[in-house]
Amino acid sequence: MSVRGAKKRIAILTGGGDAPGLNAVIRAAVRTAIWVYGWEIYGVRNGYDGFLEPDGVFPLTLDRVLGILPRGGTILGAANRGEPFARKEVRDGQEVVVDVSERIVARARELGLDAVIVVGGDGTLRSALRLYEMGLPIVGVPKTIDNDVHGTDYTIGFDTAVQVAADALDRLHSTAEAHHRVMVVELMGRHAGFLALHGGLAGGADVILIPEIPFHFEVLAEAVRQRVRRGRQFSIFAVAEGAYPVGGQPVYRRTGDAFTVPRLGGISEVVARYIEEATGVESRFLILGHLQRGGSPSATDRVLGTRFGTMAVRFIAEGRLGMMTALRGDDIVPVALEDALARHRNVDPNGELVRAARDIGVVFGDEVELLSSSTE
Amino acid sequence: MSVRGAKKRIAILTGGGDAPGLNAVIRAAVRTAIWVYGWEIYGVRNGYDGFLEPDGVFPLTLDRVLGILPRGGTILGAANRGEPFARKEVRDGQEVVVDVSERIVARARELGLDAVIVVGGDGTLRSALRLYEMGLPIVGVPKTIDNDVHGTDYTIGFDTAVQVAADALDRLHSTAEAHHRVMVVELMGRHAGFLALHGGLAGGADVILIPEIPFHFEVLAEAVRQRVRRGRQFSIFAVAEGAYPVGGQPVYRRTGDAFTVPRLGGISEVVARYIEEATGVESRFLILGHLQRGGSPSATDRVLGTRFGTMAVRFIAEGRLGMMTALRGDDIVPVALEDALARHRNVDPNGELVRAARDIGVVFGDEVELLSSSTE
Amino acid sequence: MSVRGAKKRIAILTGGGDAPGLNAVIRAAVRTAIWVYGWEIYGVRNGYDGFLEPDGVFPLTLDRVLGILPRGGTILGAANRGEPFARKEVRDGQEVVVDVSERIVARARELGLDAVIVVGGDGTLRSALRLYEMGLPIVGVPKTIDNDVHGTDYTIGFDTAVQVAADALDRLHSTAEAHHRVMVVELMGRHAGFLALHGGLAGGADVILIPEIPFHFEVLAEAVRQRVRRGRQFSIFAVAEGAYPVGGQPVYRRTGDAFTVPRLGGISEVVARYIEEATGVESRFLILGHLQRGGSPSATDRVLGTRFGTMAVRFIAEGRLGMMTALRGDDIVPVALEDALARHRNVDPNGELVRAARDIGVVFGDEVELLSSSTE
Amino acid sequence: MSVRGAKKRIAILTGGGDAPGLNAVIRAAVRTAIWVYGWEIYGVRNGYDGFLEPDGVFPLTLDRVLGILPRGGTILGAANRGEPFARKEVRDGQEVVVDVSERIVARARELGLDAVIVVGGDGTLRSALRLYEMGLPIVGVPKTIDNDVHGTDYTIGFDTAVQVAADALDRLHSTAEAHHRVMVVELMGRHAGFLALHGGLAGGADVILIPEIPFHFEVLAEAVRQRVRRGRQFSIFAVAEGAYPVGGQPVYRRTGDAFTVPRLGGISEVVARYIEEATGVESRFLILGHLQRGGSPSATDRVLGTRFGTMAVRFIAEGRLGMMTALRGDDIVPVALEDALARHRNVDPNGELVRAARDIGVVFGDEVELLSSSTE
Repeated sequence: MSVRGAKKRIAILTGGGDAPGLNAVIRAAVRTAIWVYGWEIYGVRNGYDGFLEPDGVFPLTLDRVLGILPRGGTILGAANRGEPFARKEVRDGQEVVVDVSERIVARARELGLDAVIVVGGDGTLRSALRLYEMGLPIVGVPKTIDNDVHGTDYTIGFDTAVQVAADALDRLHSTAEAHHRVMVVELMGRHAGFLALHGGLAGGADVILIPEIPFHFEVLAEAVRQRVRRGRQFSIFAVAEGAYPVGGQPVYRRTGDAFTVPRLGGISEVVARYIEEATGVESRFLILGHLQRGGSPSATDRVLGTRFGTMAVRFIAEGRLGMMTALRGDDIVPVALEDALARHRNVDPNGELVRAARDIGVVFGDEVELLSSSTE
Repeated sequence: MSVRGAKKRIAILTGGGDAPGLNAVIRAAVRTAIWVYGWEIYGVRNGYDGFLEPDGVFPLTLDRVLGILPRGGTILGAANRGEPFARKEVRDGQEVVVDVSERIVARARELGLDAVIVVGGDGTLRSALRLYEMGLPIVGVPKTIDNDVHGTDYTIGFDTAVQVAADALDRLHSTAEAHHRVMVVELMGRHAGFLALHGGLAGGADVILIPEIPFHFEVLAEAVRQRVRRGRQFSIFAVAEGAYPVGGQPVYRRTGDAFTVPRLGGISEVVARYIEEATGVESRFLILGHLQRGGSPSATDRVLGTRFGTMAVRFIAEGRLGMMTALRGDDIVPVALEDALARHRNVDPNGELVRAARDIGVVFGDEVELLSSSTE
Repeated sequence: MSVRGAKKRIAILTGGGDAPGLNAVIRAAVRTAIWVYGWEIYGVRNGYDGFLEPDGVFPLTLDRVLGILPRGGTILGAANRGEPFARKEVRDGQEVVVDVSERIVARARELGLDAVIVVGGDGTLRSALRLYEMGLPIVGVPKTIDNDVHGTDYTIGFDTAVQVAADALDRLHSTAEAHHRVMVVELMGRHAGFLALHGGLAGGADVILIPEIPFHFEVLAEAVRQRVRRGRQFSIFAVAEGAYPVGGQPVYRRTGDAFTVPRLGGISEVVARYIEEATGVESRFLILGHLQRGGSPSATDRVLGTRFGTMAVRFIAEGRLGMMTALRGDDIVPVALEDALARHRNVDPNGELVRAARDIGVVFGDEVELLSSSTE
Repeated sequence: MSVRGAKKRIAILTGGGDAPGLNAVIRAAVRTAIWVYGWEIYGVRNGYDGFLEPDGVFPLTLDRVLGILPRGGTILGAANRGEPFARKEVRDGQEVVVDVSERIVARARELGLDAVIVVGGDGTLRSALRLYEMGLPIVGVPKTIDNDVHGTDYTIGFDTAVQVAADALDRLHSTAEAHHRVMVVELMGRHAGFLALHGGLAGGADVILIPEIPFHFEVLAEAVRQRVRRGRQFSIFAVAEGAYPVGGQPVYRRTGDAFTVPRLGGISEVVARYIEEATGVESRFLILGHLQRGGSPSATDRVLGTRFGTMAVRFIAEGRLGMMTALRGDDIVPVALEDALARHRNVDPNGELVRAARDIGVVFGDEVELLSSSTE
């Protein structure tokens, strides 16, 4: 195809926790940049760090992205730290923490970059917004298995993570049923319960605990007892890692990570132990952990990643900078990074999806009416 | 939970071709009807046929829908015929075709049904609309792996079918690459190319042929040749069964099924033979067929099925009859069956998704500029 | 088919931890008993417990085993306790532990059972041998995901568990690679390392720790450092839960379960913490837990379960009692339970499979030569 | 590890139809050759063809085999032709077919190769034996999804293909059941029925047709009718492509490929049409084709491939040339290529596995007693 407009030089980086579908974005951006526009496109290694490393920025070619669509991870590598611009350095024999954001902007200019595509979650996109405000042309692409980015219906990686969670719940069902057990499965989601809600619904969970709906321990126990009375000797719990009891406090807070429960086992262990003691039904917990982040992306994530990748390049061509690609219904639209990051996205505890879950009998742990019925 | 409003008696049936996620709808409808409203809910066997069979309408219970969420198919059975109300009967020693729609309406009244939930694709929903116009209270739920129902972003079964198609393309990639072959994979889609487009994009197809974009054989051959010149000795084609060449005519027409190519191998065989002759590259075709219809539904289809199932019951409770559950962005909304069925839904050949595919180099067969470039 | 020989009445039970493939055994036994021999066959619920429960022994029919082949778990339920014949009862106001083995034998006679097929692992089969010695005709079928039953090449459930482990390692590879991490995955296997060895090999693990080869912590650290020096910034460890360091003692001992490391996180957490401290490479651990036990059985486990199930019934017909079905090469052969249980089966640390793993560079933690090379 | 014995230069090639697990063999051979022995190892592109192409033989390194374990296909490419040593050349203006086996041996000597590892099925290994007899040191590794190589319990690729077949049958079950259909699934296997037998058993097929047991059409129809009478409105057939009726002749013969049924649809179409006409039950067929050859290898094939790959190198070190790696029970043993290829391996129609299948009610089409019972 033909080159349209002035030839540009752009770069792409992936940051934050791993999410399936990153390679689909990279592949689509590279192909669109080269194929449609005839631009040069560079890869930045290991998130923003690549800007400050030798060989950290390198040319991407059509050959380099061959065969990467079905692969998990990111061919660019990622850095997953709380503060992407904070860097430990030794000065005058002392270790100090330095802010390297200005160096990154300077390096990008030195490289002659017309724009940088930043693929990341809430944290990485916030850093991208800061660079944009410092003068670096940026287009963002939202990815996170937590789906907690405002302004887009879905983020890259979420669909795959939901599928992994559902597959795990399917597997555990047979054992729970054969052994008359409660299985408490801890899913990712420190602040938002989307993954536990969708994964739990898809996996047929009987109880779903999410940070948006604090739970009563005794309601959970009563739900298990009622199921036993109805002849269901087993129960499956899908629990977001950030779920917490009424009267307690969030396990994870936005400023820093205050672990109010033991790191290991987290909330799922606490819940499993309570249920076993309160009901006498053998209870086990399982933390799905990084299994949710890796592996081959689902078809949906591959298609979404491809659309986001091509669109990010088009946004640059059209001068839509400081924007993020977003899915709205069936369309890809631009959303200002500033707007997208102005607030956090959470499950609506009164929304249709939670109501649908309640309709089919899912317990969220706030059903205090269960307690009164049990004492009749 | 408590019974709200007057107690009702409703029924649910599934019609048309199989699609993964039907059991999620049934399970959610049964649970919501019994759990939330305290209604009676009946299952109708084998599509509309059950209304006219002994034991064809039977009570559904919570126990009956236990464990069906992860299963493909439908516990109700389905009938898949062109004309669901046409029935062969013998009268005066002669076989005649009778319209049984009035008998169905009468039987539903006899059973005291307040409403019937009809889960089906375009054809089944059209029949449902007719029954609704004859006085039978109906709520529709759109399901079809073709995704060609107007008014909803997605139908039940589509996501799973796309995943199956992508998995198949992944599998074939390695063999195509090892053996320097063209693999032409025929996917379902007589009138609409959604499955081939999404599945092809997710599976990394090099060429995607859909009914909405008639193709030139020679463009396909030239695309293969150009790939060989660039060192890609293999190519993967994703072809909708209804794709057809420019100047030809649609393989499938809405009135009747005029097979203008041999039934076996269909368009994929025709394409594979042309490519092999024209380019000398060994070409094989594979028809994915019913593999796309069956098996455990994806997490997305399970969640969507659950939402549609609960919402269909709620629509009945709210008196929203003659409506269809529809997904719009992140919401489930009611759409009048009449509006939904007023036109067919097709891939927009000038839409963003086709453009995204072209951006990453996918060939649709209408790129006549490829031909001129080859003769330079 | 025709009834051969005298009509018999037999029963089947499943005991011990869950393992994929149990339903294949049950289905094949029921079909063979009814179809080939015209016998009656009963199911015993929840392991041996069913003999002492009302309705704990119930007739199995062809309809009852319909559609169960692809399902995990066991339609009979299982009891998973250390001592299957020990039962707490209250006598004279005091709780005492009673041995119920004689009651079981008596109950089986009362039911007129000619033989009982016991599907279980080492523990369940040991109990079966005791019942056999007490006069109850028994045929055993070996199942355990640990594969540690002597006399058979493979047990039911092992192949599926290996596949689950390999899938998990595949998933974690991409994240480990993207984030330059050590991922320590804990697999089941208290006494035997078959699952960790096969799963680790199939999943491309760099380090495999099994109970049969005690490891040196520092060797593991040095292996990680050497990989980093060779440009491999990540490493994958597959660790059997029963692995332990040289100079330490087995985590699990055959008499009782002496947990010498914290129950949670077990050996994988200990290893991950050591590696992170010793090498500075970020290290995470993940316990696969019950995911290895559940879910749809692999094709291999379905075929093996089918063969074992039919053969168990044939052994009864042929009077081969006190025997266990066993796979030897491509054949199913009878092995005396007494011989099979006379010793434990373990990975041969000097065998071909461990050597093959070492050949391709897998580290087992006993390579002390790595330490000397690092100090040169 | 240390170099043992004299340094060698070896090569590896993959030939014949694709089979999952080839990359596991290559990776293990490369690692063992370099890591254990310190040898040079070369890859030969596209089967034997690479010996006669520029750059057709190239050095393999540890980096080159990084990350290939989970991938289908072969990084070396393969040539799949009837006669690997036959090559069309133009001499004196005329196209002639030349035997290039001597050129291959000469080229291997010119390259200073001490031995060549040939990974292939029956055909490729036969060619290897010829080269060995011409003086080229060879070690063979058996791979074929047909499992029809004598002397080894299993070949590489078989386990994955069986799993793919079982997955497909699982998927089709739900649709067949919902729509009361006969689904005839055609699996690979021109001369041997291992894949159809194992895949059919694992997928719960009601009828299995293999070349080793010619079938009667009317027996198949009667089996379907009997199932309908017993309330099973659907049936699943697993059919090897080489299955044929009694009185007919094999579809595929060893010398040449005489297609006695139309290539398209093959035997599965013929069977489906017969069944539909004879029984009135709607019947569909599906040809699984190349889906059985590609995709990520199963854990079992990865482990077997790894063992074969390391052992092939060890055989060279030990001077065991003209041998093939073989699995016998749980051991890898050397088998003389001459012995392995002296006869073809087939399913034993009177063996335990076929009997086990019959025991659970599987019909093979030779049960003429079904016919007499139907006419009573």
